[in-house]
Amino acid sequence: MSGFAELWAQIAPVGRDAQTGGYLRYAYAPAEQALRAWFLDQARARDLLVEEDGNGNVFAWWGDPSAGDAVLTGSHLDSVPHGGAYDGPLGVVSALLAVDALRERGVRPVRPIGIAVFAEEEGSRFGLACLGSRLLAGAVDPAAAAALTDRDGITLDEAMRTALGHGPRGARPDLLGRIGCYVELHVEQGRALLDLDRAVGVASAIWPHGRWRLDFTGEANHAGTTLMADRRDPMLTFAATVLAANEQARRLGAHATVGRVQVYPNATNAIPGKVSAWLDARADSTETVEQVVAAVHLRAQARAAEDGTTVTLTAESVSPETEFHGGLRDRLSKLLDGAPILPTGAGHDAGVLSAFVPTAMLFVRNPTGVSHSPAEHAPDADCEAGVTALATVLEDLAC
Amino acid sequence: MSGFAELWAQIAPVGRDAQTGGYLRYAYAPAEQALRAWFLDQARARDLLVEEDGNGNVFAWWGDPSAGDAVLTGSHLDSVPHGGAYDGPLGVVSALLAVDALRERGVRPVRPIGIAVFAEEEGSRFGLACLGSRLLAGAVDPAAAAALTDRDGITLDEAMRTALGHGPRGARPDLLGRIGCYVELHVEQGRALLDLDRAVGVASAIWPHGRWRLDFTGEANHAGTTLMADRRDPMLTFAATVLAANEQARRLGAHATVGRVQVYPNATNAIPGKVSAWLDARADSTETVEQVVAAVHLRAQARAAEDGTTVTLTAESVSPETEFHGGLRDRLSKLLDGAPILPTGAGHDAGVLSAFVPTAMLFVRNPTGVSHSPAEHAPDADCEAGVTALATVLEDLAC
Repeated sequence: MSGFAELWAQIAPVGRDAQTGGYLRYAYAPAEQALRAWFLDQARARDLLVEEDGNGNVFAWWGDPSAGDAVLTGSHLDSVPHGGAYDGPLGVVSALLAVDALRERGVRPVRPIGIAVFAEEEGSRFGLACLGSRLLAGAVDPAAAAALTDRDGITLDEAMRTALGHGPRGARPDLLGRIGCYVELHVEQGRALLDLDRAVGVASAIWPHGRWRLDFTGEANHAGTTLMADRRDPMLTFAATVLAANEQARRLGAHATVGRVQVYPNATNAIPGKVSAWLDARADSTETVEQVVAAVHLRAQARAAEDGTTVTLTAESVSPETEFHGGLRDRLSKLLDGAPILPTGAGHDAGVLSAFVPTAMLFVRNPTGVSHSPAEHAPDADCEAGVTALATVLEDLAC
Repeated sequence: MSGFAELWAQIAPVGRDAQTGGYLRYAYAPAEQALRAWFLDQARARDLLVEEDGNGNVFAWWGDPSAGDAVLTGSHLDSVPHGGAYDGPLGVVSALLAVDALRERGVRPVRPIGIAVFAEEEGSRFGLACLGSRLLAGAVDPAAAAALTDRDGITLDEAMRTALGHGPRGARPDLLGRIGCYVELHVEQGRALLDLDRAVGVASAIWPHGRWRLDFTGEANHAGTTLMADRRDPMLTFAATVLAANEQARRLGAHATVGRVQVYPNATNAIPGKVSAWLDARADSTETVEQVVAAVHLRAQARAAEDGTTVTLTAESVSPETEFHGGLRDRLSKLLDGAPILPTGAGHDAGVLSAFVPTAMLFVRNPTGVSHSPAEHAPDADCEAGVTALATVLEDLAC
């Protein structure tokens, strides 16, 4: 078994749902905390210096981070519900193995090298993606974040206190100031590397993207006895909005998805009183994202008028385009035999950090292109190529 | 406080959700079991003989039920999620008060009078409406019923064993054979009595109705990175089907509702892999119900072909039209000063029992017509008129 396969096998069972084969690794819930404990063990076994930033993010350091100008790598360990094995953990496992590879090569870094594990990157529990890195960067108010609730009504503050003994602390310019650059390795979420016949690529930019909550309100009533003409059924307005989002995204060359919905009371024999849904929209420009959302909102309002319902739109998180650092991007591509440079529609902690430090991303080939699903996959050989590439990059940057 | 208001106040807080004002009284869950215990106390306080039928249904007898030809009344204590206070409990409370009224009048019944509390009438926990009365009547196989699961994967067998110490026993022809007739009092689920300016009405028939599960299967994938053209998004097929159900019901003069949906994984940044939805369809003829369901299924299949998804349709429960006993219906209407005779789109245990014994229903005016919602309401004065009417009916039938 290769070094990658061996380390990977240790975490493969953690939080895996036997039925779907997908992962349930929600931030601060047992499976994600078991992975975090595993990471801390791995870091200590490598004599790395471990610190937590008061926001749930963990850093494991080779060398003294207070020296500054550190080379940071890493990713996250939480998953979307029934998500794949690679999104997040591949970056963390590769970072540990890249440190091993550098030590085997006898490399003595001049700059400190750190491995970061960021908390709640997916936003699957508290609704705000990249929550840990946003808190660290001061891009979200810690009091507002503390009050965010999960689907069971548990606040982030409660979840963090249970797991860590404290709530979110907020901006840590002292820690951010030590970081010289950040390089995140991630499984590709698309098939561009397959088409290009390359195992590893470099990111150019993250599309502008955001999440909007749509609340459709009508009148709960009996499904059997209420005349069709008397209904104010928000499920209809919701359904028309789902179709409108798809049509508008196709028309404008964007991506739009309604992947999450909550229905009240969600009973077979009751017309719902309320339906809440989440719209995920992304495109190659902020203007296009805004056009999609505005068009969907208009169509939702028009349908609501027909259905006797109301609709409200709330932006939950909106991220502008992230263009990664051009110099770093080109340096990495050259270093990796002209690795192809690709944009991505997915958000990452690297997008948050790129506002503060030169940031880059490496992508590892995913033959199906599928992500956020149990079918997400990268072959071991490509993952090993990713480790080698990351080690090469860290050596180049830190020495 | 009137007798009705006093008894009603005792159960008003049980299972009430403080936020919605609706009730969460799922079969065999704590709130419904608290109501059941309350009912047993009330029955014992009236020296009624209590028996359970092995299917979760409870009977409280005034007189010796083994004498046969009994006059049975009653209803159920479970609710739809966030349902109203009246659907079910009004029939049970009215039955207790009608017995009190007869005793105050010094009535000595010749036939035994029974009060039934049927289990899981709404089907909100295990998906099959009128589950208790269907088991009693042998209209559902007890082994199949035992294996039904709730949303947490708990089987009916487990839930019954926890609450009662046994699983479902199935058909009880011995108990059914004792029942001479059944009269269920229920809050009206419509506004016909309001329009007619009458507090109490008599049922003519229950519309044919049923529940069908629709499973839409596609491919889970990343909401940000998956090209619109590469998607196989079952949420789209689901949404088109919701709109088709509404259109077809309006076209055919039927009622169709999609009130419940489950999305997998139900994450903002994931295209769903699967969406399951439930279609509730009712009309004044079985043929029309079948037309609606067939038309919806066709439209769903056509859309699935466009979306690259699949759809399967499964009938979960289908009930033919129930025409209540004509002689009993006319006798009750005459007895109650020519109470109006109304059909209903709602299913009831009375519909199940009507296949075995002469059965009738009394409706109590509901000024909003709203049901299966916290807004469901009947004024105290109308509820008292209902108690008086039920007492009059029981006296007439039992003496």
